[in-house]
Amino acid sequence: MSQEYKFEGWVALDEKSIDGNLKFQEYEPKKFDETDVDIEIMYCGMCGSDLHTISGGWGKPKYPQVVGHEIVGKAVRVGSEVKHVKVGDIVGVGAQSDSCRECVQCKQNREVYCDLGQTGTYNGIYQRGEGKGDKSYGGYGNYARHPGHFVFKIPDELDPALAAPMLCAGATVFSPLKQYGAGTTAKDVGIIGIGGLGHFGLLFAKALGANVTAISHSESKKDAAMKMGASRFIATHSGGDKDFEPYRRSLDLIICTTNDANMPLSGYISLLRPTGTLILVGVPEKPLPEIGASTLIFSNVHIGGSCIGSPEVIREMFDVAVKEKVTPWVEKRKLEDVNATIQDMRASKQKFRYVLVNEKNGGKL
Amino acid sequence: MSQEYKFEGWVALDEKSIDGNLKFQEYEPKKFDETDVDIEIMYCGMCGSDLHTISGGWGKPKYPQVVGHEIVGKAVRVGSEVKHVKVGDIVGVGAQSDSCRECVQCKQNREVYCDLGQTGTYNGIYQRGEGKGDKSYGGYGNYARHPGHFVFKIPDELDPALAAPMLCAGATVFSPLKQYGAGTTAKDVGIIGIGGLGHFGLLFAKALGANVTAISHSESKKDAAMKMGASRFIATHSGGDKDFEPYRRSLDLIICTTNDANMPLSGYISLLRPTGTLILVGVPEKPLPEIGASTLIFSNVHIGGSCIGSPEVIREMFDVAVKEKVTPWVEKRKLEDVNATIQDMRASKQKFRYVLVNEKNGGKL
Repeated sequence: MSQEYKFEGWVALDEKSIDGNLKFQEYEPKKFDETDVDIEIMYCGMCGSDLHTISGGWGKPKYPQVVGHEIVGKAVRVGSEVKHVKVGDIVGVGAQSDSCRECVQCKQNREVYCDLGQTGTYNGIYQRGEGKGDKSYGGYGNYARHPGHFVFKIPDELDPALAAPMLCAGATVFSPLKQYGAGTTAKDVGIIGIGGLGHFGLLFAKALGANVTAISHSESKKDAAMKMGASRFIATHSGGDKDFEPYRRSLDLIICTTNDANMPLSGYISLLRPTGTLILVGVPEKPLPEIGASTLIFSNVHIGGSCIGSPEVIREMFDVAVKEKVTPWVEKRKLEDVNATIQDMRASKQKFRYVLVNEKNGGKL
Repeated sequence: MSQEYKFEGWVALDEKSIDGNLKFQEYEPKKFDETDVDIEIMYCGMCGSDLHTISGGWGKPKYPQVVGHEIVGKAVRVGSEVKHVKVGDIVGVGAQSDSCRECVQCKQNREVYCDLGQTGTYNGIYQRGEGKGDKSYGGYGNYARHPGHFVFKIPDELDPALAAPMLCAGATVFSPLKQYGAGTTAKDVGIIGIGGLGHFGLLFAKALGANVTAISHSESKKDAAMKMGASRFIATHSGGDKDFEPYRRSLDLIICTTNDANMPLSGYISLLRPTGTLILVGVPEKPLPEIGASTLIFSNVHIGGSCIGSPEVIREMFDVAVKEKVTPWVEKRKLEDVNATIQDMRASKQKFRYVLVNEKNGGKL
């Protein structure tokens, strides 16, 4: 099969790229495997991880980088071994591009936690096949190539622009909501941080039938949170005990989306009922705040972590999104305005999620 | 009913009592309720909590104090509302003396996590009944008075001297082993710290059918641990990654009994398989070591805490102890040698558990 397109994207060349210096240029994608799919990118959501990676905040990345892992577009080349997607389908890729597919975790449909480590959609190195040793590249560009196992058909009922941010942000909160029984064993669910991830937390917790509490440092997003499905709003202005005391032991499950390393973690934990769990999905660049063992021991509560979503979970999320008409709150930006949009994200101007639109490839503003 | 005995015990009068200055003297127990049981003490296990309390390491206690919460003896006065115990029975009390009995936790047989807080067997204040406002006193003495709900009949098949340390140390590890599925959903169980709590961890994890790994900072207790039921021993000499790497992702559940605030917590967590949980039962006097959110997120693992054992759990523990012939490793000391024995504990001379013997009340050395 011939390839009549070039892989071009907004490339980060060094740490200074974060200051509005992504360059649009060609790059070399992984070698094509017959298990791969090439996607003509129409939309790409912008995730906080993209900025942590460009800036090196999580550690020096493998420059040059094209970030973006909420990719939706048209399948333009489909490897002969890929059966669930055909050329012309609207498909998407989330934050994971590959895994070993052979370990216990992979065999149990928990590819995110692959024993050999996952290959991220960008800043990763493929460990298998023709592309072994090649780098992975994300969606701030024209085309993307990823293993078909991690490429999903987007349901016809979903707006592809809105499906894009579900692939990372949506799945990152849907996965622990489902795993920890939101709406079933966990009736009362709290969502900390009402941003890109958090707003999906409210939408999906509600869709799963939970009573939802929004938890934010100020009241500025209260109205939006209530519209998204929260029935209660806790503002933790001071981070002190008095913010939390009235709501002590009132939640079964908390999804913590903030990546503020100074979060009032002990206060958050005090909101859990015994046997309850707080799941971290945001990754601060510094260690978690100190807590005492007694905070956990005397209430029989837990802190855990959950990472994006494995393919089975992503498909289940799309089913719920279709059935419950989950509609994320996004703001569209032109792909060519990516440098300016990054500055807006750094200045915390985005309300919930920016989605880059590639108009040349058919994306609609 | 008349009372022909005096409540006397080894009393801590101030922080200096930890240096061998407990004084044998009379004290005023709680006022008797018809729901209470008086116990003529034969044995009392010695728990690390006793020392933390005497010294004020967990915060200034309510002096004068008589510590000790692994109490076994003969019921000598039984309130008219107590139905499961009669005068003459060999009975025991663990680390909890009372709770509200009305909250959701109490109603669900999880009295340890009572919404109003538990009343400890010592250093507590009763919140109910005739004794409301009175202090609780422990078992380093001749007699103890406690609410019957927290007084257990000791099975005839168990040596009362060996049943004593089960009431706190045994229950503290049995409770999370049972709650988190040791031997069923959690096949591979690790026990960190092979002391008083930890040796019970090995014994009960084995009794529940788990494959047991003992984890200690040195190899000094390896032989003992293998005799207690461990099939694998990990020595974490340096606390560095290399101690843990060979055993990465090999455990489903870890019970952490150490109260060393410098424990290599991230290393311990690396031993968990995804979805696994590390349960803290030891309470360091300082905050837990720093960990990064990514330690939890990228493996979908959890840290939680569990506190002693509620009555239902303690009864279940005794059933398992009888059925599986669980035999703790204890060293008996005379009650009147308590000051010297505390010094031996402070010098880490005890191997697993000291049990104080009150020979005047029929305890046997």
